[in-house]
Parts: sequence; structure tokens; C-alpha cells
Amino acid sequence: MCGNESVHNHKSTSMAHSSRVPLNRVNIRDEFWSYYINLVRDVVIPYQWDALNDRVNSAEPSGAVRNFRIAAGLEQGEFYGMVFQDSDVAKWLEAVAYMLESDPDPALEEIADGMIDIIAMAQQEDGYLNTYFTVKEPGQRWTNLAECHELYCAGHMIEAGVAYYRATGKRKLLDVVSRFADYIDSVFGTEPGKLAGYDGHQEIELALVKLYQATGNERYLRLSRYFVDQRGQKPSFFAHEHKERGGKSHWPDGYAALNLEYSQSHLPVREQEKAIGHAVRLLYMLTGMADVAAETGDESLLAACRRLWDNIVNRQMYITGGVGSMPQGEAFSFDYDLPNDTVYAETCASIGLIFFAQRMLRISPEAQFADVMERALYNTVVGGMSRDGKHFFYVNPLEVDPKACGGGNRKYDHVKPVRQEWFGCACCPPNVARLLASLGEYIYTVQGDSIYTHLYIGGEAKLEVGGQQVGIKQTSHYPWDGRISLEVTPEQAGSAFALAVRIPGWCKQAVLTVNGAAYPLDAGTVVNGYAVIERSWQPGDLVELNLDMPVLRMHSHPLVRANAGKVALQRGPLVYCLEQADNGPNLHEIMLPREVQLEAGREDLLGDVVTVRAEVLRLRESDWNGELYSDKPTPEAKRETVKFIPYYAWANRGEGEMTVWVREQ
Amino acid sequence: MCGNESVHNHKSTSMAHSSRVPLNRVNIRDEFWSYYINLVRDVVIPYQWDALNDRVNSAEPSGAVRNFRIAAGLEQGEFYGMVFQDSDVAKWLEAVAYMLESDPDPALEEIADGMIDIIAMAQQEDGYLNTYFTVKEPGQRWTNLAECHELYCAGHMIEAGVAYYRATGKRKLLDVVSRFADYIDSVFGTEPGKLAGYDGHQEIELALVKLYQATGNERYLRLSRYFVDQRGQKPSFFAHEHKERGGKSHWPDGYAALNLEYSQSHLPVREQEKAIGHAVRLLYMLTGMADVAAETGDESLLAACRRLWDNIVNRQMYITGGVGSMPQGEAFSFDYDLPNDTVYAETCASIGLIFFAQRMLRISPEAQFADVMERALYNTVVGGMSRDGKHFFYVNPLEVDPKACGGGNRKYDHVKPVRQEWFGCACCPPNVARLLASLGEYIYTVQGDSIYTHLYIGGEAKLEVGGQQVGIKQTSHYPWDGRISLEVTPEQAGSAFALAVRIPGWCKQAVLTVNGAAYPLDAGTVVNGYAVIERSWQPGDLVELNLDMPVLRMHSHPLVRANAGKVALQRGPLVYCLEQADNGPNLHEIMLPREVQLEAGREDLLGDVVTVRAEVLRLRESDWNGELYSDKPTPEAKRETVKFIPYYAWANRGEGEMTVWVREQ
Repeated sequence: MCGNESVHNHKSTSMAHSSRVPLNRVNIRDEFWSYYINLVRDVVIPYQWDALNDRVNSAEPSGAVRNFRIAAGLEQGEFYGMVFQDSDVAKWLEAVAYMLESDPDPALEEIADGMIDIIAMAQQEDGYLNTYFTVKEPGQRWTNLAECHELYCAGHMIEAGVAYYRATGKRKLLDVVSRFADYIDSVFGTEPGKLAGYDGHQEIELALVKLYQATGNERYLRLSRYFVDQRGQKPSFFAHEHKERGGKSHWPDGYAALNLEYSQSHLPVREQEKAIGHAVRLLYMLTGMADVAAETGDESLLAACRRLWDNIVNRQMYITGGVGSMPQGEAFSFDYDLPNDTVYAETCASIGLIFFAQRMLRISPEAQFADVMERALYNTVVGGMSRDGKHFFYVNPLEVDPKACGGGNRKYDHVKPVRQEWFGCACCPPNVARLLASLGEYIYTVQGDSIYTHLYIGGEAKLEVGGQQVGIKQTSHYPWDGRISLEVTPEQAGSAFALAVRIPGWCKQAVLTVNGAAYPLDAGTVVNGYAVIERSWQPGDLVELNLDMPVLRMHSHPLVRANAGKVALQRGPLVYCLEQADNGPNLHEIMLPREVQLEAGREDLLGDVVTVRAEVLRLRESDWNGELYSDKPTPEAKRETVKFIPYYAWANRGEGEMTVWVREQ
Repeated sequence: MCGNESVHNHKSTSMAHSSRVPLNRVNIRDEFWSYYINLVRDVVIPYQWDALNDRVNSAEPSGAVRNFRIAAGLEQGEFYGMVFQDSDVAKWLEAVAYMLESDPDPALEEIADGMIDIIAMAQQEDGYLNTYFTVKEPGQRWTNLAECHELYCAGHMIEAGVAYYRATGKRKLLDVVSRFADYIDSVFGTEPGKLAGYDGHQEIELALVKLYQATGNERYLRLSRYFVDQRGQKPSFFAHEHKERGGKSHWPDGYAALNLEYSQSHLPVREQEKAIGHAVRLLYMLTGMADVAAETGDESLLAACRRLWDNIVNRQMYITGGVGSMPQGEAFSFDYDLPNDTVYAETCASIGLIFFAQRMLRISPEAQFADVMERALYNTVVGGMSRDGKHFFYVNPLEVDPKACGGGNRKYDHVKPVRQEWFGCACCPPNVARLLASLGEYIYTVQGDSIYTHLYIGGEAKLEVGGQQVGIKQTSHYPWDGRISLEVTPEQAGSAFALAVRIPGWCKQAVLTVNGAAYPLDAGTVVNGYAVIERSWQPGDLVELNLDMPVLRMHSHPLVRANAGKVALQRGPLVYCLEQADNGPNLHEIMLPREVQLEAGREDLLGDVVTVRAEVLRLRESDWNGELYSDKPTPEAKRETVKFIPYYAWANRGEGEMTVWVREQ
């Protein structure tokens, strides 16, 4: 159905890399994740559809569907919303497609088909599709790529078209976006008469590779590679177009028009050494670069991906998998600059990091990629949504004092101490929705004759390896417990292939058994962080992995100024935090003694989470002499027991303080 | 000459309060301060005059003198610069006046006289004086008090006029500003037909009290009280004028037009409980309020001054005497919010704090006021100027990482790691100049039959107490050494009066002798932090005070989140810091053990300062395993010796890191 196998066969220049696992092959039934996926299906997608149709009274209007109706000639009116409003409809359709691929739903499909009909009518004669420029600024197409998200919106619609085709086999939207991509290909390029431009917000690059994979049309892969290669070439295209349009800016601050680092267009992508600029842009770009590298065998592009991966995850990533240290430009700052309170760490950026990690895993199954994917998923991304599925964080701080937010100190204006209703700016919520709806894509990859297990998420999968179908039934109480069982059922008894299971970076002691017999874990069997089990498999063979999951005391690299002298707790993939709801205000008073016992236990709280209790030292205001500054001996800190909860679960009990990093005594 | 004695005599409603000590009565000859005062005379004032006349090629043009020439009809042209550009000329004249009062200089006086002639010609028929509204927006007077600094500029010119009259006896500028004040009085008030307004930037209030003190004309005191009383009354005048002018803003962001807290006009001043809004505005307001309270005996106004004083110094002041925790609005934030790195702590705000402390000392000689005055003076204010007198800090951080400033992390965009050439925005440098030029006003006050010594600054003073002249010769190596001698010479031998010497809050052990004989320091002799020596004085009586000056380990109130677990060193009035020049980069690696010895010693460095050496623990990057996050045991920190320097002297050796607060182990 997907057509991607055929593409592989007729391309000899690509790197060995694994393909997407279709979602109808992976049926998630997981104690932890099913809750969130059901939320997306039952709450998020219907709510978002209402919002896109301006039927949510408490939210500001979206106008997104109406914009398409106006562009389609079905309604009279003015364009409403942001220049990238179309992408909200596209992301919603993409999430719907993933849901339909996993779990058909004729009523939902009918709604989506209706939306696709309108989109098709909104497409222009020449294939162009963008309601802003069709309705509001006709004649101004492609005059402000730096600021106006034209190709970004195109990319999201392409992703939707591909996903919908894969889910339903229906070609209507795929044909629309193919025609649009053909038109884009006729406009952009370095040939005379073409625009040698690229978008201010990367996205089209990864989308065109998906379109290539779905259609087998190499034109789209070449176009994607063009956008990757052209970015950051001198003289700057953004400076050129800025001059051409007489210096006009779409946005009042004009920030994006000429700030080349913001959009990673300051240098050709292969020459970029450090993560800089808008975090989501960079991670979408890297995802597209990895895709192009995989499909074209471009080693220099892969080297750039690895270099920027290293910079991000080893120097600019929060322990929660959040990235982007500053709100100004929603951007990376510099190595080891990881402030916990003024952080940005946009939910979308961690989703982008997961996309990038997934693409790197497809090229090279190394546990470092899956470790980061898991870290971002179990902390920032799932933490980005409330347990009711109706409230979202854009910014994911690691330390919050509600007194300081909301005007107390205006450097925290971007930090919200509780999740917000999700339709103010519609980027993160639908991104969470589409990621969770497609979570089945991230669990396994098949590389050559090996099945790689990256994530421990329960359910049943049917994978194709060495030309035959293999069933895998995964069962666990992960992330609460490190015991995972994988029941393997090959189509034909006695088939030889490998099952590789990830030994997470956080796990210092793992025990692996196959049908109850110990399987050695040593340099011979553990490759790049995966225990590789090669054997002839019988139906019902049982692989059991027991990952020791103590509470870890994590410290930061000494150059991380914000965390000097501080410790964070982590258990399994979950980072922990202290919350006011459990421990009262002024969490900075708390010091965790170096040798104290950390007691983990499951608790009827926030969905049966494992909490961690510890006896800490606390210097309280009431023991102090009242002076602002004093040279008198500091009073002795008193002992008390505090409770840590998983970071992702914070801010589900009203407004209060929270901190991940705690002073160590 | 000054006329202020006569004013006191004919006013019966004022509180008992001391008067200004004329600068020609205090001749400073001090190891520490003479250097800076000479810099102001020899470098700052001449340089600033060139700058005001657009003769400094490396600085952006000022236009300030030229604006006056245009308004005076001496030149054709356009207004140039900020709406408050006039105040630069006024502050320069005021600083010149103080210099002339201390130390006549006919050549300088001639230049000043020439400037005053131009100012007089720029005054309008009706007394109005403001080059912006005369040249650039005639007809728009008083239409935007919230944003346009009209009365602020008036206030500075009044201060200049009073200072120049006091210094030289010349009335020309005093007459100009009196006529201007008369005109202002005819415009503003609650009577029908008058504008019930006040300025967006407080300053006129304190200036009018000076004008009243210099002229004895109670009209100016009443007008000052009107501005104090009217501020913050409902309905809001700023909302009213905003509507009247059709919502137009002078500044692009319009921030000041309706943000009432920013200009402390959200509530009547007597109802304000916490320091909020623009720090300089608040401190100028409080200075004016204290002045009005002193002159009118208004106890409710004094109570508001005390309440806001308490809030500032006990909850919102940095250990360096800096105030204003955030750059947004250059403003106070909230209680105990004192971030060291994103701080604002504008030099002008600490100067305003000194003004306010001085006024409170005139009303009530309490060492708490002088302690804060000293803290601000010896740390933030003198630190605001470089040792060459040509570079200035506006923002005075307590922790700086140059990698983070200048774009590294944009929350530090306002923080400069080195002092800047001073004419970009001309507020702080001339403020430092006028404060240092008038430092003689801050050392002593005379209250009843007592001479109060607030600051330990060497030199000779001639003070009037109980109707006779008393000479005081102060000698010390302060702030490097706590031994101070005061030689007292009354006009008539055997005169009875009190000499009160401050026992600073930082001093835990003081020894006082009079002519070599111990003078007891106990509840009977020490009142409000001053040791009061009552006796009949003989010429040459020698009072010797020995203030023990160990290095103190200062801790912050437990609610100061930024300083939890940290210590700062202080010796005498000087706060210390670590600088990269002495200790290498990554100062956050350093931990000061609780029991370690702190060795203070004078050193040939930065003008012979006392440095402090200590053996610290330091966890260096090179001892770390390279991981961004690690659960491996933290490597042991190594011992090394570091050097602390006085905070005010930082950033005189190039760009580098600095920190005041150090982790305590």
C-alpha cells in the first residue's frame, strides 16, 4: 500500500536504512500509553475539529476551516488568523490519518473526507495551495519566504496527504499535494528563471521525502535535497528577497526576516557546527537532512546530522529531553547554558527531537538515539499534556515559582505555571496529537535481518523481516517496572533472524532470558546498546528482559552553571520533581543529603505513579532571624520527608512551585 | 547665602530636621574618594561638556546644547535626541555647581554662565522651558505627562538653578527656574481650569522642595505637595490624558502611557505598600515625599516613606545596594526576588536610594539609613564608574558570564560585561558625577545640638551647631581599615554639644576613645546606631573610633531563592566578588568551605585594594567524565586558593566572569 518498498528497490544510492512500520501493524495496548492515545482519539481530535470550525466558545476563533471554504469559493469572507493557519488543518488531518490507520473509524473518515474535498477545491489551477496568499494577498506568493511559512504549510499538507493515503488508500489529498509539489518544483531551484529560495521554517524537506517514499517519484527527493543544499548559501536569499520586497516585514518586529541564525540559514547546513536559532526549525531541518541522507547515501549530510545531534544531546538538552534554552526566538542559546526557570523547551521542539532520533535510528540503530527519544517522550512530551487531554504546555520549565510568573518578574512572562487551554497558538497540541497517534511508528525498526526494539510499549506488532511476518507481543508495566516480556511468533517455525532489545543508558544492570534460560549480555551480544538475540525462533518463544530500575542521583556536567551543586532524581526513563502540592512552597529551601535513602513506591496518585520519598534537610524562613543579609551563623536545617513525583505529572493539582534540580548537601 | 535657614525660621509646621551642609564647608581629602572626585572634575565634567556640544567623535551626537540654541533663536535646525534631552544639560550644570561650590574655578564658571545665558533665552514668554516641546511639538505642551518627562526635565533644571545659586550666588538660572515653577503652578492643580496631573517620571517633587528651601517661597513647597498628593488619585490622570490625546503614544511600545504601576501612579502614595515599578522613579518619588514630610510635618507621608524604605531594604535590595530586579521596566519585581544575573540594579536607582536615605537621615538620624547609603555608595555607585572615569555601568550585575551576554542568551541583552562609553543614554554618568561632586553633603548632619557623622570620609568640615562653628577633621584609611580619628575644634573652647558617630551595622566590635580615654559603648551612649559623645569640647579634642573589620560571611534570607546555599564576603562596607582575571573562568565551579580561613591583605592592585584569599573546593570540567548528565559518583573537588576583590573594582581588567555569591560547602 505504501509504495516505499518499491522505492527502495529501484534506488541503489541510498544508505541501508529501515522503513516506516505501518501503524496497522502495531497495536498498542499499554498500561501507560493507551490512556494518552485514547485521550487523543476521544478528546483531543474531536475538540480540535470543533476548534478549527470555530465551535469552541471559550477559545478564540481559529478560522482555519473557514479560510479553506473561502479559498474554495464556498463562502465569502476575509482570511482569519496567522499566516500559517492552514497547517492546523493539515496537522489535524495527519493525526486523524494515524488514528484511522491504527483503528478504522468510518464516521471520522467521513469528516476527514469532507475536509479534503474542500482543500481540493481551494487548490489553484496551477497547483498552488495556501489560503492566506489566495484570499488575503493574491499576487504576493513567494515574496516573503523568510517570514510567511508558505512551504512550511505545504509540508504539513504533504505529510497529511501521505498519511491519509497510507491510512485509507484514498489518493485525493495525495494527488492534491503531489500537484502542489510539482508546482513548487517548477518554481524553486538554482536554474535560471527559478527562485533559489527556501522556507524560513523548515518542514517541506522532511515532507517531500515522505511524498517520495509514498509515490516513488524521485522528483520529490531531488526537490527536498535542493532545499537542504540551498539553505544558507551565499549571498543570502533572505537578504535578497527582503530587498526585493522593499524591506517590508510580515511581523511587526521583523525579527525573522534577516536573522539568519534564527532560521539556520546563516551557513550551508553541512557547515553548521552548533545547534543555534529556533529549536523546532532546527530539529525539523535535521529530520529532513537525515531523511535525505538515508535516501541518497549522502555521508557529508549524515556527518552534519551526527555533529549537530552530539551538540544538542551532549551540550544543549535538558535532562527532561527539552531543548531550547531561551524564549527569545524560542531558541537554542549556547553550550551548557541550561537555565531551569527561564527555559523555553517547547513541547514541539522535543517532538522534533523525537522525529530526528527516529530518522537516525532508521539509519543506524544505536541506543543513544533511542535513549534520547525515550527521555523526550516520557518527560517533556507526555508532560506537555494534562491528564484531562484538554490543557497543554508550550514551555516546559524545570523550575517554577508561580509568584514569579504572570508579571512577578517579567523574565518569566513566557512560563505558565499550569497548562493552558490549547487553542491560543495551535502548534504544540496538534503536534502532541499526531505524535501520540503515530506512536506505533517509534517502537520497532527492522534493519536487514534484525528487529530492533527501541521503546518498551506494550501491544502486538506484526513485522516483516527476511521476507516473512513475525509477531511480537510485548508486555510490561513500564515505565514503573523494568520487567519486559516479548513473545515472538514467526510465521514459520524455526526462522532465523535477530531480535535486538535496547538496554537503556539509565540501566546499569540488566538480565535477559530466552525461554527462561539466561542470555549472556557482553561485548559479543550487546552492540550499540542493543542486546542482539540471534536464533531460530519458534512460535511463542519468550524473551524476558529485566532492567534494574533503582532511583538514580543524576548530576550535570560541571559547566552547566544552573545545576552546580544540584542533583536530580531519575528512575527508569522518568525524571522526578518536587511539587508544592506535596511539599509546600519554597522548594529551594530543600537540600538532599548525599547518602540518604530514596524509597520508590507505587501510589494511588496521578494515575498510579511511582513516587520517591526521601528525608531531606530544609532551612525554613521561620528559623531565620528575618534579616535580608546576615553574618550570623546560619540556623541548622531541619529534617523532613519529601515526596518526588514524575516530572511529566506535575501541575495536575493546581498551581504551585515545582523543581527538578535540588541542592545536594 | 543659601536662604534655607530663614525658611526654617518662618515655618512652624515642619518636623525637626537637619539642613543641607553647604559644600564649601566640607573639604574632602580622602585616600579613597579624592581619586573619584578628581576624576569627576578633571575627566567627567570636561568630557561631558564636549559630548553635550557634539564634539566627541566616538560618541553618538547629543544635540542637547544645540537644542537650547535652537530654542533660543541662536541657531536654525531640528530638535535632536530624546524627549528628555534637556535634563542632560541640567545635570551637567548641577554637577558643575557642586564643583564650584567646593572649589571655585573661574574658567568653568564662565562656561556655565554662557550655557545659562542660552537657557534663559530659550525660556518662553510665559516661563515655559523645554526645548523638545518648544522646537519640535509646539502646541503639545502637557498633553502627555505620562511619557514625555516635561516636569522631570523641569525638576532637573530647578535642581541646577538652586545648586548654581548656592555655589556662585548668581540668580540668573534661579530666576529662570522660579519663573518656570510659577508658570507650572499656574497650570497644575485640582482647582477648576487646571490640569490635575503629575509627571510620569517623578523628580519635580524633590526639586520644588529645593527651590522652596533656596527661595523661602512656600508656593513651591505647596506645589510639590500637590504633585505628591495627586499622584495615583482616581480616576487616573494618565488614563484621562491618554484618551484626550486620542490614544497616541510617544514611544513605540506605549508601555509607560497606561502602565500605572510602572510610574507608581496606581495608588495614592500613602497607600502604597510595596516597592513596585521603575526603580529610579520610585526612589526620586520617595526622596520628594521625605522632603515634603520634613517640611510640612506630614506624619502619614513619613509613615509611607518608612514603609516603603522597609520593603526596599529588607526585601528587595541586593547586597551591593543595587535595586531593581528586572530589566523589563527597569523595575522592582517582588519580595525576595533578587536574581544575580538577570538583575537590573541601575546605577541611578542606587543614587536615588542614597538621596532617599539622606533625606531620612535629615529627619531621623538612624544608622539603618546611613548603613544602606554606605552600602549603595561603596559598591554599586562607585562600581558604576571605571577607574579611568570614562566608562560606566547602567546595569550592575552580581554575576556575569560574558559568553551569556551579547546574544549568548538573550535574557542578558541588558547586561554588559564591561563598562560602556558613557554617552549612549546619558542618565547614569551625569548622575554619578553630580553625586560624587556633592559627596560632602552626605557625611554629616547637624540635628539640634548634635553633629552626626554618617560616612567615614576624610577631610575637614566646618559645621554650625548651637549657633557656633565647629571644625571637624576626619582622618582614616577607610574603607580599608576601621580606625577613624576625628579632631574636633569648636570656635569657643568648652562648648557643649554632642558628636555622634555611626557604629556601622556590619561592625560587631567597636572601640571608642576620646583623647585616648575609653568611651563606653552601651545602651546609654549608643542611640539608633550612633555613639553619642556629649561633652564640653576643647580645640583639638581627639575622638578615635576603631571599627573591627573582619571578613564577614554573609548569607541571605532563606526566601532569596537565588542565594540559597550561597555565601558572599563582606569586609567593612565593601562587598567582595570573584573575578575571572584572578581565578580563571567557570567561577560557579568554586565552593567556599564553611570553616576555611579568609585572609585579607592590602595589595598593589586596582588602586591598592584589600583582597581576600581563601582555600576553596573546585570541581573542574577536566575531572568530569564528559557526560551531560551522569549517575556516576561526582569526582572529588580539588583544593585551590582563590582571590576575592572588592565588587566595585570588577571589570577594570578586561572582560571576564564575576560573581558575588559563591556556593558554600
